[in-house]
Amino acid sequence: MKKIVVDLLGADSPQEILAQGALQAVNGNKDIAVVLVGDKHTLENAVKAAKTDTDRVEIVDAQDYISNNEAPTALLRGRDGASLALCYKRLQEDPDAAALVSAGNTGALLVGAIYKAGLVKNVHRPSLATALPTAGGGLCCLADCGANVETKSQSLVEFAYLGSAFCTALLHKDNPTVGLLSVGKEDKKGTTVTREAFAVLKESPLNFVGNVEGYDVMSGNVDVVACDGFAGNIVLKLSEYVGKLAVSQTEKILKDAGIVGVEDACHKAWRNYDFNSQGGGILLGVNKVIMKAHGAANAETICCCVKQAATLANNDLPQKTAEIFADLKAE
Amino acid sequence: MKKIVVDLLGADSPQEILAQGALQAVNGNKDIAVVLVGDKHTLENAVKAAKTDTDRVEIVDAQDYISNNEAPTALLRGRDGASLALCYKRLQEDPDAAALVSAGNTGALLVGAIYKAGLVKNVHRPSLATALPTAGGGLCCLADCGANVETKSQSLVEFAYLGSAFCTALLHKDNPTVGLLSVGKEDKKGTTVTREAFAVLKESPLNFVGNVEGYDVMSGNVDVVACDGFAGNIVLKLSEYVGKLAVSQTEKILKDAGIVGVEDACHKAWRNYDFNSQGGGILLGVNKVIMKAHGAANAETICCCVKQAATLANNDLPQKTAEIFADLKAE
Repeated sequence: MKKIVVDLLGADSPQEILAQGALQAVNGNKDIAVVLVGDKHTLENAVKAAKTDTDRVEIVDAQDYISNNEAPTALLRGRDGASLALCYKRLQEDPDAAALVSAGNTGALLVGAIYKAGLVKNVHRPSLATALPTAGGGLCCLADCGANVETKSQSLVEFAYLGSAFCTALLHKDNPTVGLLSVGKEDKKGTTVTREAFAVLKESPLNFVGNVEGYDVMSGNVDVVACDGFAGNIVLKLSEYVGKLAVSQTEKILKDAGIVGVEDACHKAWRNYDFNSQGGGILLGVNKVIMKAHGAANAETICCCVKQAATLANNDLPQKTAEIFADLKAE
Repeated sequence: MKKIVVDLLGADSPQEILAQGALQAVNGNKDIAVVLVGDKHTLENAVKAAKTDTDRVEIVDAQDYISNNEAPTALLRGRDGASLALCYKRLQEDPDAAALVSAGNTGALLVGAIYKAGLVKNVHRPSLATALPTAGGGLCCLADCGANVETKSQSLVEFAYLGSAFCTALLHKDNPTVGLLSVGKEDKKGTTVTREAFAVLKESPLNFVGNVEGYDVMSGNVDVVACDGFAGNIVLKLSEYVGKLAVSQTEKILKDAGIVGVEDACHKAWRNYDFNSQGGGILLGVNKVIMKAHGAANAETICCCVKQAATLANNDLPQKTAEIFADLKAE
């Protein structure tokens, strides 16, 4: 059975809280096994408390971690006892260790993805992607959403391929529709870089639907949106904020109008936009499944991330990505 | 009294509907006078029907217009009878004609702003700006929001100055806070272009607060957000869409939960995000106040645009912009 390695140190929440989330994922799904990395004694107690099947939980003891204030390259410089270093060691040495989930230092996670897990052949840079909830109740895969703020057209094309593979692995959707984020639907709209990428994507084997606009990230009109990490990061932060704001404003107006008993319904709507609780980002183009949970992750976040990581690992995302990029090189 | 020239042809709605909006602005405000450009007979009937004070309404007869399918430069090529050409002619010849409102061809409006109204000295390109509603009930001025999708750092700096002047003229706010849209608050976050702009803005006389993130366009944390037109366009389209979507989802959840009588309150919340009804974009850095209403503008849109245009004209936005850019050159 494939194992999900979970880094429990270096996030805002204490490790026992985050461990609860990982164990909840194990308890709820017979196909999930985890390797918990953190203080052994604390984690043993957490496993006991959660009454988790111990056949599917391993613990790796770690006392050190790379904090958010440290340079990402600390991972490569003699910090072999840091929790994240132990996570990557496990990924390198254990063929069954297929995925990593961390809520710690993002830069260090990225450095490890490149230098420890390794990039898929012919991929130039990992792309940070995420799945956003859409109007119709589905998901839209957004790549890149912050790892690559400055891109050439070749990168945008790669993000489209990586996002497409991600969508297929996460949502079991063959040949998903792919859009290129721009300022209008017409072919010529956009920047020099997006227009160059458009020309390449139009001739690609992807199910490319052309340019899409800001709202299409949530409209459900398209399965995958490719964009640079600058625009993607803004899309992500803005949509979460505006969604929550609009629900809060509605609740206030309802209450001001004297309508009672609306809290539960409004909270339910608000939770649609609580992206933190819904999972995390994934680094695409890497030889293992590498998931980044928000630094403010709670148990629910980690549970979602572990489940997503397991889905992607069980659907062989890295291998499928490698096949796609091998073909790309051959063209 | 300053006059607002209103182009009533070339939009989706018929001129008599748009004229109602302009006349409503005149009826509701003794300081507003308009020049309506469209079919004379139709507009005379509209004025009669609205019982508007005829001292503050002029009509210029126009039968031709530049459609959305035409090249923007059509304005410069022998289409002197087109409504937009007549509007710009009036701006050029009548010192009291201080502003123009149009829901027609955006490109042609931009061409006219540059070649007919003229750019303020030392401004390199007009910036399309708009004011978005924020969490606290205020407004945030966003520049650029679509006219300049590819920018150098110098343009971002100009947008910051132009946005600051716009904010002061629209909201009577001296020394408004200005943020630079980026992917994180730290000084070094962003692209090469945003980091270069950051360094210049930090040393500028503007009330520059540093980098801001996607959600800050609506958080109320800052009065002005400067960004390139690619990001700005996405922000605008996404925030309107997500706001409306979140309210609609809340309404559905409320109804599914059996809570009745929520329609009016939800519609009120939804209207917060109906940007089309709240006014339009303004081309900053031009010698006159040039406002672009959405092509799908209705009477309410035009009414809001005329009122905004009057506010900006009465607060001497073009002259104040000229003073700022004269000083910039001197530095």
